[in-house]
This record gives sequence, C-alpha cells and structure tokens, in this order.
Amino acid sequence: MRGRLSSPTVSAERDFIAEHRDDLLADLDQWLRIPGISAQPEHHDDVRASAEWFADAARRTGFPTVAVWDDGPWLPAVYAHWRSDDADAPTVLVYAHHDVQPVDPLELWHTDPFDPTVDGDVLRARGASDDKGQLLFHLLAVRAHLAATGRTSPAVNLTFIVEGEEESGSPHFEELLATHRDELACDVVVVTDTGMIAPDVPSTVTGMRGMVSATVNFHGPDLDLHSGVFGGAVPNPATAIARLVGALHDGHGRVQVPGFYDDVLELTDDERDLFAKVPDDAADFLGVAQSRALSGEQGFSTLERIGARPTAEVNGIAGGYQGAGHKTIIPSDAFVKLSFRLVADQDPAKITRGVQEFVRANTPDGITADVEFEGDGVRPCLVPLGTPAYEALSGAISEAFDGAQVLPTREGGSGPEAGLQAAVQAPLVFLGVGLPDDQIHAPNEKVTVPMLFKGAEAAALLWSRFAAVGRSALTGG
Amino acid sequence: MRGRLSSPTVSAERDFIAEHRDDLLADLDQWLRIPGISAQPEHHDDVRASAEWFADAARRTGFPTVAVWDDGPWLPAVYAHWRSDDADAPTVLVYAHHDVQPVDPLELWHTDPFDPTVDGDVLRARGASDDKGQLLFHLLAVRAHLAATGRTSPAVNLTFIVEGEEESGSPHFEELLATHRDELACDVVVVTDTGMIAPDVPSTVTGMRGMVSATVNFHGPDLDLHSGVFGGAVPNPATAIARLVGALHDGHGRVQVPGFYDDVLELTDDERDLFAKVPDDAADFLGVAQSRALSGEQGFSTLERIGARPTAEVNGIAGGYQGAGHKTIIPSDAFVKLSFRLVADQDPAKITRGVQEFVRANTPDGITADVEFEGDGVRPCLVPLGTPAYEALSGAISEAFDGAQVLPTREGGSGPEAGLQAAVQAPLVFLGVGLPDDQIHAPNEKVTVPMLFKGAEAAALLWSRFAAVGRSALTGG
Repeated sequence: MRGRLSSPTVSAERDFIAEHRDDLLADLDQWLRIPGISAQPEHHDDVRASAEWFADAARRTGFPTVAVWDDGPWLPAVYAHWRSDDADAPTVLVYAHHDVQPVDPLELWHTDPFDPTVDGDVLRARGASDDKGQLLFHLLAVRAHLAATGRTSPAVNLTFIVEGEEESGSPHFEELLATHRDELACDVVVVTDTGMIAPDVPSTVTGMRGMVSATVNFHGPDLDLHSGVFGGAVPNPATAIARLVGALHDGHGRVQVPGFYDDVLELTDDERDLFAKVPDDAADFLGVAQSRALSGEQGFSTLERIGARPTAEVNGIAGGYQGAGHKTIIPSDAFVKLSFRLVADQDPAKITRGVQEFVRANTPDGITADVEFEGDGVRPCLVPLGTPAYEALSGAISEAFDGAQVLPTREGGSGPEAGLQAAVQAPLVFLGVGLPDDQIHAPNEKVTVPMLFKGAEAAALLWSRFAAVGRSALTGG
Repeated sequence: MRGRLSSPTVSAERDFIAEHRDDLLADLDQWLRIPGISAQPEHHDDVRASAEWFADAARRTGFPTVAVWDDGPWLPAVYAHWRSDDADAPTVLVYAHHDVQPVDPLELWHTDPFDPTVDGDVLRARGASDDKGQLLFHLLAVRAHLAATGRTSPAVNLTFIVEGEEESGSPHFEELLATHRDELACDVVVVTDTGMIAPDVPSTVTGMRGMVSATVNFHGPDLDLHSGVFGGAVPNPATAIARLVGALHDGHGRVQVPGFYDDVLELTDDERDLFAKVPDDAADFLGVAQSRALSGEQGFSTLERIGARPTAEVNGIAGGYQGAGHKTIIPSDAFVKLSFRLVADQDPAKITRGVQEFVRANTPDGITADVEFEGDGVRPCLVPLGTPAYEALSGAISEAFDGAQVLPTREGGSGPEAGLQAAVQAPLVFLGVGLPDDQIHAPNEKVTVPMLFKGAEAAALLWSRFAAVGRSALTGG
C-alpha cells in the first residue's frame, strides 16, 4: 500500500507524508470518536472535548501558540499560531471547523458513526470528510513542510482558526472574527472545507453561493371554513401560497423575483469553457441525488446551475389538513419556506427587498401576508482566477497531482467564507479534498484516505509557494 | 313570548304547536345531553343511547312501529313507521340524523356543549340545529297534524330513517339502504338537515353539491437533498405540487381539470332571477366566513358560486420542512389534498378520470405521482322546481311563514341525499330551518327556537298537502 503513494523522485514533502501516514490515521481514529455535534446541546461538552483534542494535537505538532477560544457566545473554537522566523513572511489564515453534523437517522448507518472503520481506501465515520479529516491533514502538512525544507519554523506565518459552530450555521462567527480581529489579521485565507471533482480530477472551489431564506405566511379566513359551505367563494390561503410558488419561476426556470438577475456576474466564455472541461456525468449526479431527472434554468449545464446561477427552492410548504383521509376545509393559514441561493455579485439586502415585492405582488385580495427572513442573509463568495494567491494554490495542487490541470469549480452551498473574507479583507482560496460521494451531512459519511495525503502534500507545498510569492504580491493580487 | 307565535286565526296546526312548544323544548333538553359523536369511538355508546332516546320519543308520539337498526356495520339508526288508515295514501320517507359533530376545540365554547342553555330565542348546544332540533320538530308536527285534522293516523304513511353516522360521512348508509330496501320504499323523500336564508326569508334547498376528494402525492429524489449542493438542478416535488395547484384554475377562476364543465347543468335565466332575489349581503357573508374578501369563478354571484357552480379547493398541502426557522433541503415528497365540489349533472367517475389526467399533465419529469381518491365520490343532487312534490313543500313552508314567497337555494355541501334518492327512486325535497349563523360543526352551535316551530308547522301542513296531491301525481312529477 505504501508504495503506491510514495514516489521519492517527486518531492521531499511527498516522501515525508508517505512515511508518516499512520500518524494521521491514528490521530484521526482518536478524534473521530468525539461526537462534537454543535446542533445538539447535549453534545456541547463533546464539542469542547473536540476543541481540546485539536488544541493538543496542534501543540504536539509544534505550534507555539494554541488556545481554545470560548470567550464569547460561540462554542469552543481553536486558535493556533506559528510565527515564521522570516521577518517578511506572509501570514496565512487557515479556516476549518471541528464540529460535526448530527447522525440521525442512525438506523441508516452501516457502522457506528463514532467508531471509525477503515475498508481499503475508505475511512467511514461522522466528520471523516467534513471536516476533521481535512483539518487534520494540515498538521501532517506542516511537519512535511518543515522536514522537506529543513526549516524549524514555517516559511509563512501560519494561523489556524477552527470553528466549533459551522454545522449550526456559524451563528456567532462574525462576532468571533470581530472580537479576535488582531490575532486573525492575515494576507491570504485558505479554506479547507470543500471538495474536488474526482480522485483523478484535481480542482478547487472558486465560488460559494450566498443565501436569503424567507418564510411567507398567508392568512385567509380567521378560522378553517367548511369547503362545502364556503368553497369557491372566498380566497383559500393554501391555494394562494401554491400560486405564489407557481409564479416563482417562468417557463425557462428563471426566478421571477423583481431584479433577481440584475447584479448576477455572468460567466465569461473562458469560465464556461473551464466548466465544460469538468467531467459532468448526469447518471452519476442523478445517482448521488437519487433523483430521476435533471431540471433548472434553461441554457446552463448542471454544474453551472449549481455553482454559477442563483436559484429559488421550496424547502417546506404547509397549510390545512395534514392527516390521513380527508377533511373538507378551507384552511385559515398556509406558509412556504423559500431559500434563494445567490451568486456574485448579488446583494442579500437587495434580494430581500425583491422577495418582499414579489410576495406583495402575489398576495391576492383577502389574504394577509407576513414574510420572515432569516437574519440578513449570506453573501456569495467568488475567487477571481489568475491572482497570485490562486496561481500559488493551483500550482501546489497540480504538483500534488503529478502535474494535472486544476479545474476551477463552484459550490452550490453557502458558508461563512464571505463573512470571513469581508472581516479580514484578504484574498481567499479553497484547498479541500472531499469527494462528491462522501455523504457529508448524511448517514455513512466517509473520506477517501489517499485524498487526505494529497491534501497534506498540496498544503505543504503551498506554504513554500506563498512565501515565494511574497506578501505584497499576495495582497495586491 | 307565546303570543308572538300563536295566531289562532291562521291554522289549527299553528295553534297546537303554540300550545305544546314546551314539550319540544323539554324533549330537546333531554336529548341534547347525550353526546352522540359518531366520529369518536369512545362516544359510540352515546350514539346508541341517542338512538334509543329517539326511538322512545317516537313511540311516545304514537308511532306504532319503531326499531333501532344495528343489524349492519353502521352505528345505530332509528326506523319509525306510522301507516295511514287511508288505503291510497302516499308514503313519505323523512331523512335526518341523530349523531352530532365533535366539540373540540372545547375551549372556544362559552357553555358546556352538552348542557343546553336557552337565552331568549337562542338554544345553544351541540346538535341543537344539526340535526336533533330539526328532527325533533317532526314529532311535534305529527301530533299537530293529527290534532288539527282530527285524524288518528297521519294522512300519509310516514316513515322516518334517522341515521347515526352522517357526521362521519355516512360510510355505511348505502349498505343500510340496500339492506332495508323494503321498509324504506316511498313515494317522496323529505330531507330535514338543511337551513333557510334568514328568519324572515323562507327558503328551501334545491340542490346539494357532490364531491370528489383526491390526495396527490409527488415523490422527487429518494431522500431530502441539500438545497445548496443540488438546488436548481433537480425537480423539487414541493415546487411541483405548488405548480400543479397553480394550474388548477385559470385567471377567471375556472377549474382546469379536463372536461370539468362538460356536464354542468347551467342555470336558467329563471333560476338566476330567483338566486338574485335572495338577500345577498356580502358583509354578512364575509362576517360569517371571517374572510376579508370574496373570490371565485368570474361571472357568478357568491350564492351561485356556492350552490350552482363546481369548485376545486385545496384542503391541505404539505412538503419538506415544517418546523421553526429554516432547513435548506429539497424535500423528497410533497402532497396536496384536493376536494372538488360537483353540481348537476357532473358525474364523480368522469371527474375522477379528469383529475387523473390533470395530474398526469402536471407531473414534471423526474417526479412520480400517486393519486388516492376517497371512495367513489358523492353525486350531486338537484331538486327540479315546479314538480308536485316541490309545490307541496313550497306551499306548506309559505303557509307557515304567513304567505311569504319561498326561495329556492342550493347548498354548497355534500351529503347522502343523492345516494338516498338513487336508492329509493323517489322525488326528494328539503325541509330544514337552520340558519346561516347556527355554527354547525363549530363551537357554540345554536338553533333559533322559533324556527323549530316554523318547521313543525310546515311539516304538519305538508302531510295534508302530500295527501291531497296523491301518490300518482307525486311519483309522476
């Protein structure tokens, strides 16, 4: 097994990693046993234990400054800092998270989610891919970086911020960033919480979608009415809310919220060419989605629809009788929960106003509407191609993948990255080695172990590349 | 109080009723204390007690043949028969029911639903209007009929069939009718389970809507999907079910089920003139409905929409996340519960096929649809105006209301009447004295007591009128 990964002719980083892979696996086996589920208060002690475990591991790795931050309303986060001996070294902020998703429905797991099992290249446990495995490859990467370069400190100032609430929507992350603004100052951000297209198709995320979430409540008659006595003569809020949803897209799959596309940064021809290079196997995609068809905005590929186009989805709808059989009522109330995924350069505040206008225009006489938004929404995040930070990242990944071209991709989901970038005002790149079938957020989460070593190698190489680029080029890019 | 109703110059029937009104009130007070809720198994003993109580009351009134029928899967029904001494007398079948609606939410009742209270002309209790009060006026009516005519048997053969499952949708009524076909043979049916427009606007129901009920289940991906990772790229069953509902009506409020209006018996100009005579106070209607607007099929009045036009209503809709806050999923499943109210001469079987076709046409690629129908549906029921049976009824009601014109109305609801009519193959008329604000099926049900005496008077007069018309004219009409 070892022989397959070690190729001494390629790089000293790869050699070191190949020789110490068992260290990573042993650490991961320990850490994955801690059920740090941030969404479940009964696991908050475990979230703390998880933070303490990673803090210890960072100290063991050699980080001189390590702290568990619980000096705010957030669950424990870990801060680790290793200053370079080089005076002018750029400062890199690595973002990841140590909390994990809930595990229910437990009966769908084939193994205990907190008893890691290895089967060939597959390591199965909750958090294996999202995000403990990916965070942990960085500790091996730092050691490889030092060993390969003969240094006693990294070539860059390395700061880790490891959040403990990401799987709960990062509710206090911006407050944490504000509180610790000084410690987190940096020249470039590396986010390690994403994935690649396939084991043999290296790629990097260059965008994450933003989000606006709204619950639209329609109120009709003040009580449920007998649909025989009143049916056909008064507005039915369940019918009305369905019509509102029906009006949400046109026949081409385009969202009908006023001004929705005004600020969308359209894909360039070059970007579309790059998207087209990504292996896009509809059967595979449908298999993972367990869906029987594709659909969406006309004129765009599935990858473009997910990564580069904004969407409107119904996350929940309800009104009236929900039980078995029939109850012939006109319900008094109905609601729909909508989420809008945003892309650069859409502004959540402007989309929020558009949604309000859309609801007003689709509220019939006799229905009163109330719209609740989830916070201020999440901004979309876009990584420009061709910047020094992007080229350094792309070069490091390519080197770890034996010179293969690194494809830019975009993620459909939404995370704290845009807020992080806004807080630290530095360019941001994504180094993640999850795979599409990792089943993150689902039963039987797994990570493909060789991908972790690829990630470690890319990180080890990246610190040297960032140092070579230098501070001013990184931040000016 | 008594003086207001008694007008000795009008009829001996009215005199008798005025003198014996306390009998009706005393009986009603006893019977309303029995909580015969057919929908709740824990009250099935009460349904039996309710049947026994009415059987005793019928015996006390003088009915020679009285039986509680529980010789089938139905809850106890009461049969009472009084043969006329006149050999050629027509046979009248009176239909009513003795079971009552559930009383929840109990906290909205101002008094105990099973402790009747009288406040002026208002008697408040569950079942006061629907249907015990109305059934009970018939016993006083028979006595008045005999006393006023000096007969020892009624002028018609009188048969009562008093169902115990009407408030549960009459699930076994057709089987009961088939089992007791011989005892229930008749020349005309009088249904006593409806209402009038207002205390000073006598009217009679001339139609009840039929019904087809369907639950449409849409299945999309085999699991709830992350709306970030998959949003905008696969069909969302909640969006799809909403679009199906959105397609259910056109911009004019017309139902888009294929062939929906093909067999609708359009209102004649005369019928529309009669509808237009009915006081139609939008403010009153909206007050009772507690709705803020009217709506419906364009080109028709509210009364026409409810009584004479078919409708499609959403009784319930659900899919995806229903809790507080947000969960960004594409749900795996969604459903909508639809009810279609039908008018003459729509056929439930044909409408069922149309709904299946509509669902097929509105099921997008990647969604699988399953439609469940509630039984075979309910046929609409229409009473032709101008028949001897209708004229006799109209005359009797008019006489009880001092010669006022009796307006034909149509009820929006659906009941067992069409099945009853089909089983006995006899003309059917409606004698009911409920009022729109009786709150049947709701908390604080009441009956307006003087209406019960009007009903008794009309019934007492009706038996003489039916006898005068004679069997052959009634059945030939």
